[in-house]
Amino acid sequence: MAVYTHVSDEALDQLLEEYSIGELLSCKGIAEGVENSNFLLHTSEGFFILTLYEKRVNEDDLPFFIGLMQHLADKGYVSPRPIENKTGHALTEVAGRPAAIIEFLDGRSVARPTPDHCALLGESLAHMHQTASDFHIMRPNGLGMGAWRPLFEAALRDDARGMIRESEKQEIESALNLLEGNWPSNLPQGVIHADLFPDNIFFLKNRVSGVIDYYFACNDYLAYDIAVCLNAWCFENDGSFNITKARKLLSAYGKVRLIEKSELDALPLLCQGAAVRFYLTRLYDWINQVEGALVKPKSPEEYLKKIRFHRDVKTVQDYGL
Amino acid sequence: MAVYTHVSDEALDQLLEEYSIGELLSCKGIAEGVENSNFLLHTSEGFFILTLYEKRVNEDDLPFFIGLMQHLADKGYVSPRPIENKTGHALTEVAGRPAAIIEFLDGRSVARPTPDHCALLGESLAHMHQTASDFHIMRPNGLGMGAWRPLFEAALRDDARGMIRESEKQEIESALNLLEGNWPSNLPQGVIHADLFPDNIFFLKNRVSGVIDYYFACNDYLAYDIAVCLNAWCFENDGSFNITKARKLLSAYGKVRLIEKSELDALPLLCQGAAVRFYLTRLYDWINQVEGALVKPKSPEEYLKKIRFHRDVKTVQDYGL
Repeated sequence: MAVYTHVSDEALDQLLEEYSIGELLSCKGIAEGVENSNFLLHTSEGFFILTLYEKRVNEDDLPFFIGLMQHLADKGYVSPRPIENKTGHALTEVAGRPAAIIEFLDGRSVARPTPDHCALLGESLAHMHQTASDFHIMRPNGLGMGAWRPLFEAALRDDARGMIRESEKQEIESALNLLEGNWPSNLPQGVIHADLFPDNIFFLKNRVSGVIDYYFACNDYLAYDIAVCLNAWCFENDGSFNITKARKLLSAYGKVRLIEKSELDALPLLCQGAAVRFYLTRLYDWINQVEGALVKPKSPEEYLKKIRFHRDVKTVQDYGL
Repeated sequence: MAVYTHVSDEALDQLLEEYSIGELLSCKGIAEGVENSNFLLHTSEGFFILTLYEKRVNEDDLPFFIGLMQHLADKGYVSPRPIENKTGHALTEVAGRPAAIIEFLDGRSVARPTPDHCALLGESLAHMHQTASDFHIMRPNGLGMGAWRPLFEAALRDDARGMIRESEKQEIESALNLLEGNWPSNLPQGVIHADLFPDNIFFLKNRVSGVIDYYFACNDYLAYDIAVCLNAWCFENDGSFNITKARKLLSAYGKVRLIEKSELDALPLLCQGAAVRFYLTRLYDWINQVEGALVKPKSPEEYLKKIRFHRDVKTVQDYGL
């Protein structure tokens, strides 16, 4: 839940002057997103989301994020559309922060996705990959494979209280060695969402009505995005892997964009890599948690179990294909 | 900012079944209110607020609060209307908590009220007092004058870290003696809001569009409600009293409901009492603050200064009348 920055009445009035979205009737902070401050605006023309980008988002990346959302929305994908102001810009400044007003999308995210939700996700992810294929800005993946070892070393360095067990260190060390030694070098690339967890997809009447939160989007292997989703959508709360959900996700994706043999072969390694990525960022936030912070960091433990699962996977058949 | 209780998809679907407000399209937690969890619902019929009453609200008081809002809305006052479900009840249960779906009202609260806002407030407060005069449920003021000494003693008892200065103790002690010895016994009574701070009033196009948050409302002296507002609306950030704002508030109120001479005479004491009430609840929360809590308690210091100001007021002329 996130409203980090207070926006004064004057700043709001000034903001609305910049846009042609009618008169402001109401503005409420909403408990959505972890990185940014979000407000629901009601104007005489409808409802909108005002996002203020806080310090965890690099300002230089905003043209990529906003441009990607515009590109996707222009081509009919279910991304919320950033609204352009009177001078044709979708990026502005409010209360000293970069900010954007974005279309309000209906729909609800699901806390416990069913196999059918996983199929809808797979289909929508493939559509996103296709729709973004001609997006012209590039953004390297700042949390891609090359970033994992430095992140692990930073976590070890900051672990003053000894929260990382010795056996865990060795496990991650050998996972990193394996990943670095075997990471594929020639898979289909493109724009990936890179953070497509269940809370970033809205469903309405058995279809996907919105895909939000593009603030980790970047260029990387498309199959790596599938691997992120297999991790985020196909494990049960007790840690078990739901092969039915994985099969639904993969086959629905494959009906829209054919998954190549090289991608299928690499999938177990990509899944292990994606699990390492979320394990490491959670570990880092866990170790560096601030007393009394608004957002309690998630335990990395869940992703340690996922690393182990994928380590034991031999072929893509273990994912239901 | 407050979303204390998670509401599952199933619970939401079940809730909407109880009501005739269309199909649920979206539900977002909103950062509004300190005591309760609030969600913005979008349905095929419009926007609504879902409030889950958390443990600081006594369940037995809910028929008073909900009934009062219904009564005010029925009679055309700008209170949000609690929506009745198919069985004619406005109070229900969600995720094990008492809950209500309430009308969404447009408008914005102002962080820095102008004298004109104070006039609009005064007029609206008087209308509320008149409109609620035939409301049939009674609720004694649990934070009225009789509650102040026990609250002070509880704060002293809990003050393990010695946060209350000796001189401050003596000041409060003598204020309590003065208030208890001189509290008026025969002023016009009725239903009061008792917490009408600027964040509880919405303005739109130079009028009051909403008065919300009736969860301290009770039966007490009507002029005590005016005293709460003089404290909450007429002091500047630097602690100075803005007599122009006070004059505007009082004269606008008086044009709707005549303020009797006995009420005017008692006003300095009522104002001092209201300042003591907010000083004490803030002091109590300050002393008993929970490490890492979502809501940081407000310092009582601001209200100590207000107690001193009213202590030196001789007559109601000092409030601009």
